[in-house]
Amino acid sequence: MKSEPQPSIESQATGLWLVGARGAISTTLAYGLGALQRGWIPPTGLLTATPALESIGWVPWDRWHLGGHDVCLRDLSASAQELVQAHILPPGWPAALADWGSQYEQAIRPGLLDGAGEGLEGLDPASVTLSQRTPREQIAQLQADWNQFEAERGLATTVIVCLASTEAKQLARPEWDVLEQLDASLDRGEPQPASLLYAYAALDSGRAFVNFTPNLGSRPPALHQLAELRGVPHCGNDGKTGETLLKTALAPMFHARALRVLAWQGYNMLGNRDGAVLRQEGHREAKLANKDEALRSILTQPGSQPNPDLHSHVAIDFVPSLGDWKTAWDFVHFEGFLGTRMSLQFTWAGSDSVLAAPLVLDLARLAELALRRGESGVLAHTACFFKAPLAGGTHDFHRQYQILLDYLGGVVPPS
Amino acid sequence: MKSEPQPSIESQATGLWLVGARGAISTTLAYGLGALQRGWIPPTGLLTATPALESIGWVPWDRWHLGGHDVCLRDLSASAQELVQAHILPPGWPAALADWGSQYEQAIRPGLLDGAGEGLEGLDPASVTLSQRTPREQIAQLQADWNQFEAERGLATTVIVCLASTEAKQLARPEWDVLEQLDASLDRGEPQPASLLYAYAALDSGRAFVNFTPNLGSRPPALHQLAELRGVPHCGNDGKTGETLLKTALAPMFHARALRVLAWQGYNMLGNRDGAVLRQEGHREAKLANKDEALRSILTQPGSQPNPDLHSHVAIDFVPSLGDWKTAWDFVHFEGFLGTRMSLQFTWAGSDSVLAAPLVLDLARLAELALRRGESGVLAHTACFFKAPLAGGTHDFHRQYQILLDYLGGVVPPS
Amino acid sequence: MKSEPQPSIESQATGLWLVGARGAISTTLAYGLGALQRGWIPPTGLLTATPALESIGWVPWDRWHLGGHDVCLRDLSASAQELVQAHILPPGWPAALADWGSQYEQAIRPGLLDGAGEGLEGLDPASVTLSQRTPREQIAQLQADWNQFEAERGLATTVIVCLASTEAKQLARPEWDVLEQLDASLDRGEPQPASLLYAYAALDSGRAFVNFTPNLGSRPPALHQLAELRGVPHCGNDGKTGETLLKTALAPMFHARALRVLAWQGYNMLGNRDGAVLRQEGHREAKLANKDEALRSILTQPGSQPNPDLHSHVAIDFVPSLGDWKTAWDFVHFEGFLGTRMSLQFTWAGSDSVLAAPLVLDLARLAELALRRGESGVLAHTACFFKAPLAGGTHDFHRQYQILLDYLGGVVPPS
Amino acid sequence: MKSEPQPSIESQATGLWLVGARGAISTTLAYGLGALQRGWIPPTGLLTATPALESIGWVPWDRWHLGGHDVCLRDLSASAQELVQAHILPPGWPAALADWGSQYEQAIRPGLLDGAGEGLEGLDPASVTLSQRTPREQIAQLQADWNQFEAERGLATTVIVCLASTEAKQLARPEWDVLEQLDASLDRGEPQPASLLYAYAALDSGRAFVNFTPNLGSRPPALHQLAELRGVPHCGNDGKTGETLLKTALAPMFHARALRVLAWQGYNMLGNRDGAVLRQEGHREAKLANKDEALRSILTQPGSQPNPDLHSHVAIDFVPSLGDWKTAWDFVHFEGFLGTRMSLQFTWAGSDSVLAAPLVLDLARLAELALRRGESGVLAHTACFFKAPLAGGTHDFHRQYQILLDYLGGVVPPS
Repeated sequence: MKSEPQPSIESQATGLWLVGARGAISTTLAYGLGALQRGWIPPTGLLTATPALESIGWVPWDRWHLGGHDVCLRDLSASAQELVQAHILPPGWPAALADWGSQYEQAIRPGLLDGAGEGLEGLDPASVTLSQRTPREQIAQLQADWNQFEAERGLATTVIVCLASTEAKQLARPEWDVLEQLDASLDRGEPQPASLLYAYAALDSGRAFVNFTPNLGSRPPALHQLAELRGVPHCGNDGKTGETLLKTALAPMFHARALRVLAWQGYNMLGNRDGAVLRQEGHREAKLANKDEALRSILTQPGSQPNPDLHSHVAIDFVPSLGDWKTAWDFVHFEGFLGTRMSLQFTWAGSDSVLAAPLVLDLARLAELALRRGESGVLAHTACFFKAPLAGGTHDFHRQYQILLDYLGGVVPPS
Repeated sequence: MKSEPQPSIESQATGLWLVGARGAISTTLAYGLGALQRGWIPPTGLLTATPALESIGWVPWDRWHLGGHDVCLRDLSASAQELVQAHILPPGWPAALADWGSQYEQAIRPGLLDGAGEGLEGLDPASVTLSQRTPREQIAQLQADWNQFEAERGLATTVIVCLASTEAKQLARPEWDVLEQLDASLDRGEPQPASLLYAYAALDSGRAFVNFTPNLGSRPPALHQLAELRGVPHCGNDGKTGETLLKTALAPMFHARALRVLAWQGYNMLGNRDGAVLRQEGHREAKLANKDEALRSILTQPGSQPNPDLHSHVAIDFVPSLGDWKTAWDFVHFEGFLGTRMSLQFTWAGSDSVLAAPLVLDLARLAELALRRGESGVLAHTACFFKAPLAGGTHDFHRQYQILLDYLGGVVPPS
Repeated sequence: MKSEPQPSIESQATGLWLVGARGAISTTLAYGLGALQRGWIPPTGLLTATPALESIGWVPWDRWHLGGHDVCLRDLSASAQELVQAHILPPGWPAALADWGSQYEQAIRPGLLDGAGEGLEGLDPASVTLSQRTPREQIAQLQADWNQFEAERGLATTVIVCLASTEAKQLARPEWDVLEQLDASLDRGEPQPASLLYAYAALDSGRAFVNFTPNLGSRPPALHQLAELRGVPHCGNDGKTGETLLKTALAPMFHARALRVLAWQGYNMLGNRDGAVLRQEGHREAKLANKDEALRSILTQPGSQPNPDLHSHVAIDFVPSLGDWKTAWDFVHFEGFLGTRMSLQFTWAGSDSVLAAPLVLDLARLAELALRRGESGVLAHTACFFKAPLAGGTHDFHRQYQILLDYLGGVVPPS
Repeated sequence: MKSEPQPSIESQATGLWLVGARGAISTTLAYGLGALQRGWIPPTGLLTATPALESIGWVPWDRWHLGGHDVCLRDLSASAQELVQAHILPPGWPAALADWGSQYEQAIRPGLLDGAGEGLEGLDPASVTLSQRTPREQIAQLQADWNQFEAERGLATTVIVCLASTEAKQLARPEWDVLEQLDASLDRGEPQPASLLYAYAALDSGRAFVNFTPNLGSRPPALHQLAELRGVPHCGNDGKTGETLLKTALAPMFHARALRVLAWQGYNMLGNRDGAVLRQEGHREAKLANKDEALRSILTQPGSQPNPDLHSHVAIDFVPSLGDWKTAWDFVHFEGFLGTRMSLQFTWAGSDSVLAAPLVLDLARLAELALRRGESGVLAHTACFFKAPLAGGTHDFHRQYQILLDYLGGVVPPS
């Protein structure tokens, strides 16, 4: 698109900035990327590295540099040891990757607090101070952190990914609808959700933004307007890693067989910090809304009304002994020919962080590719990665995946 | 295609001929169709009756006439009472639909025996006699039965559907590859599998043939040649009703997330006559092959070799107390990022006959539509109905379903 | 005990009075008892009818007469039809047992309301009126109902069983501790929970009382004193029918293997009126307390402190499509040698009413036997029937069962 | 019993000899005992170490010395590394316990081959040579190995435990019934199953023998006679670690509720060498017989005939990716009141070795205690440890456990 000679993608250093940098997903990603760069592991779980897609001009794994924001001071090595305990990281890796981990940790800056930061241990005092400044000052600080990171490492750009804990559910505000009004509100110094400020700071500075959480992020129309104005791509919300992935992979089957789902009940247990936060009512509510919406959307017959009889509920319990291993039981009660009632039940036992980390790496590659190709606005082709995609038109996982393949089929690998 | 004025599809009486006419699927279909015709039940489980598809010019439910072949003499009302016991048919229906049932039963003719008909109670002596005649005579008899049925009921055509018990697995024979050689073999009076003779008789007489069983049917190339020669459509094999449906709906999810499936074990329990037959080694082998093939096909990455490490097995046990209620447990062991091993398990509890019967009705409509539209050869767009589709190119249920929707999108409803 | 000649137990007509007479358990019991009397069904589920125990001098099934209290006017035949729909009663039974059902229904009297009777449809106006009278008047009315029932049918006695819906949880009151204070409170006309009034009326009038619900019933010490004073037996609380039965059968195994249970999570779905009532917070709380207490009691090592790390929770969801079929999923996370973490999960699918009804019949026989033998106070040997036994010393199902067998071993069958 | 002053039990060094010394259970036991001795782990899974039982005069953990027989040459550290891979041993232990492991490995001697030792890699040539000698010579060699072990370590006695792989099922032989005939057969040099020779050698030399496998061991009457003759205790067969433990804990519940079990199907997956051996037909048969027998025994009503309708089957599949983690799914179909059919299903996921190792340690303590107390013959109180107890009278796990507690209640701790 530009006429000057460009460095080949193989040599273009790129940043990946993780908001929630000391959390389980970020730590898994950091050590996993380190291992990938050293060829210690095959790229299992990484769609962009499969034989059919690897020839697209992705930024190679060894050209990514990591940095991030966090509100806690907890050592990265403590997070890594927890992952070793959970049988996610091999025991020798924290030591073997100590230099790589330390390089990452040096690029972790104080983050923005969500509300009072309730329930968090080891809060970074610098985060508390930062969160008392005006929104405009906070945005400026985030952008300064990123500029410094890019300058120090010689990076072409940085993809910003939100992996923070779930924020409490927020009532819609009028200023979120129109960029001018949001700008005016920011000018007046009115507080905004942390995730919105991250999204604003990223898009405003021409950086791609990925929201892997159920938090607000760039969902408000005002942020969409900002992304278009700056010509920057963004996507989200809420990574589709486990139970919802299964739901949106299975529900289309019931639809395609004209079977009538009477009830779809889900019971989730998780034991990590995410689970502890979800014990709080408001935070849980935000999470559950996305799970239910996807199901109802898929099961509604085109040309007909939503099924009023569908009974669905997702319960979440905190079970500390499970640690990062999320176990979900789903029960599907459905009616077939002659009104006969039948059932399907499944138990999913997986590590949330292990399922999420490669999706974040894939999204970073997709976001960087889109930015490089001059695409702006919501990346609708990434819908298969999210519980509540900002765009994409369907929750059916298989259709979402096909849309991604179709998009990638149109990408001409650089010669 | 013809120039004479045709009767509208709404008034065109059509035959549906069930091979295995007294079995559980046929009985469920017969009473269910009777109930549909009387408006007693909504069309749950019938894809061709969903709002999005019902405007295509299907033969209406009340224009279908039922007939069939069977090798047993067992009363249809005895089969119906078993379904009442299994809570599949409401208790009052056998009496309320006595006339309809009796009309069907009068059109049941002696069928062809598979091998010695081992393990079958209540064998029809006429079937034994028929099976001792030459293949050509057997084919002629089948065709005579259908001609008589159509003449008596004034039918435009009859769709032949194979629902018989699973035949023992057969070694491939050279004459199955070329129609001329098959004809020569038939002329010489060499015995052939019953399902092949049904397929031959149907296609040879210009009737559409649907093989809902794992039996040979029209799978051999010689039968494909016959279908093309006569300009008749056919499809099969082996209805995808339960566990395999789930497998082919779920396996694409693992593939699309680049997760590495290490093991997919299935344990099936069933208590009906189908289960009793599957206790015999050769019969079980025929059934299981289709289940495994579908899984391996989906999980193989394009551009790469089949996964040599995939360990998959399906065990089948006969559990009489379950009757027609099939219960299957599947365990999927898979590897994600960092080599982490995770698992999914599910239990499917459904009535095989209730799941199968509406698929047969949908297939009858699709086969009749294809014949009316002058289509010949394998109906590749029906692949989503079968465990081992004769054509279709993929086992991925969602792709198969999209192919069907695409086909139907191209059908112009008759004005 | 008396010196006059007595009628043999085979000819002694006895009453069984069901509080909650039109509910699902009572209806199942009523039609099931009718079928037992006619020899239509074997006594499956009835411990007192097993070969080893049947020779004890129980009141024979055909000598039991049914009556009851209810606050609703709903027809018994409507309840019976619901059970037919749920595949619990064979379709022909409501008609074939119409006389028997009608005989029972004629002996159903207006019951006492719990609080405002919230959420109940078809309230009996006579129940509303009765509930506005003083506690002493209500007690007198209950006793008058029983006296009339016994006189009309010529019964030796009547066992009173509480099967009403779950009451809201109540704070302890001082007058419940001492009979004199309870009497004074009743004299002052202060309202009391309905289940307490039933218990008082029964014990006060020399009738055995069985509380099959989590409601208060005869749990307060004042009622124990009344039972001793009148020389009457009683037992309860809360029938152990499904998930808790399993828990108290399985937890001893973990204890006996010195395995350390880290978490025991239960997720219950039910769709009957019981489930609808349990959606209300206070009512659910009363139910869940009993489930958790039993587990902790069993898993505590003798000689050691309760395990502070045990994480247990039971979630209940109302799933209308399940009707009377309760489905529960339990997940047990436990630690063995070397700190290795392992898991057990189970799914229980059973009809609550079918599981409960025979326990009520067994308890009626046990209570009548105890009364006849002159036993008074809590029947500790019935602990295996209850989630929260009034006495018995252990929640371990197998020990409870052994205590029952030991008790019955000491009963000399009447010659 | 003897008049000389004895060393206190706290200072009495004792041997534990593991047949199958390099297998998964033995390796888990060896490293686990090492960790116990060093106080690295609490005694989870060890019944003899619970507060209620620890005051009985057991040989303390740090007085046990390990030795064993094996037919393979495979390094113990290789077995330990496999356990680390399976997340059973912490990664640092093989190194930290290297001295302890090496001390054990030095006491491993060539074992007896079962048949041709088919399917075994890394066979010890000395085992092959030993197995070609006469049975009498083999017995003498085993005893010589034990004598040397005790002399070198200064041990009071040695408990011999069989943990070898499953032998092929054997037809009963007449000489197994009478000790004189067995002796004559041995004198004639006729080959015998390896497990029988181990049992003979142990009992003949006054050492307690524990058979933790389904192999023959000391089951034949001739061996019982030998044990009585020499005044030595023995017990077995087949450790009750997982699915059968659950079965025998749950089946009594169905019995105690007079519920009629229609089907109990089990599907077992395992991936260790045990699983590989069980793929062979004869070996699997030996294993499965014990599982089925226990179930039928418990479900038979006293005073009645065995239930002819009970349908039970256990399927076993080898799933390499599971390694030592055995996953079993059980489905129980049962009938309650009114003939209503209900179901229970469970999934058990546990490490076989982790479940077995502490049972072996408990049995070693119990066998040593019995020998010290002068008890001879079958230790009926150990029945709760075995799938097919040599004596004990019941398969009901809870009764078996009570029998053990009763026995231990009669043991007076040494003052």
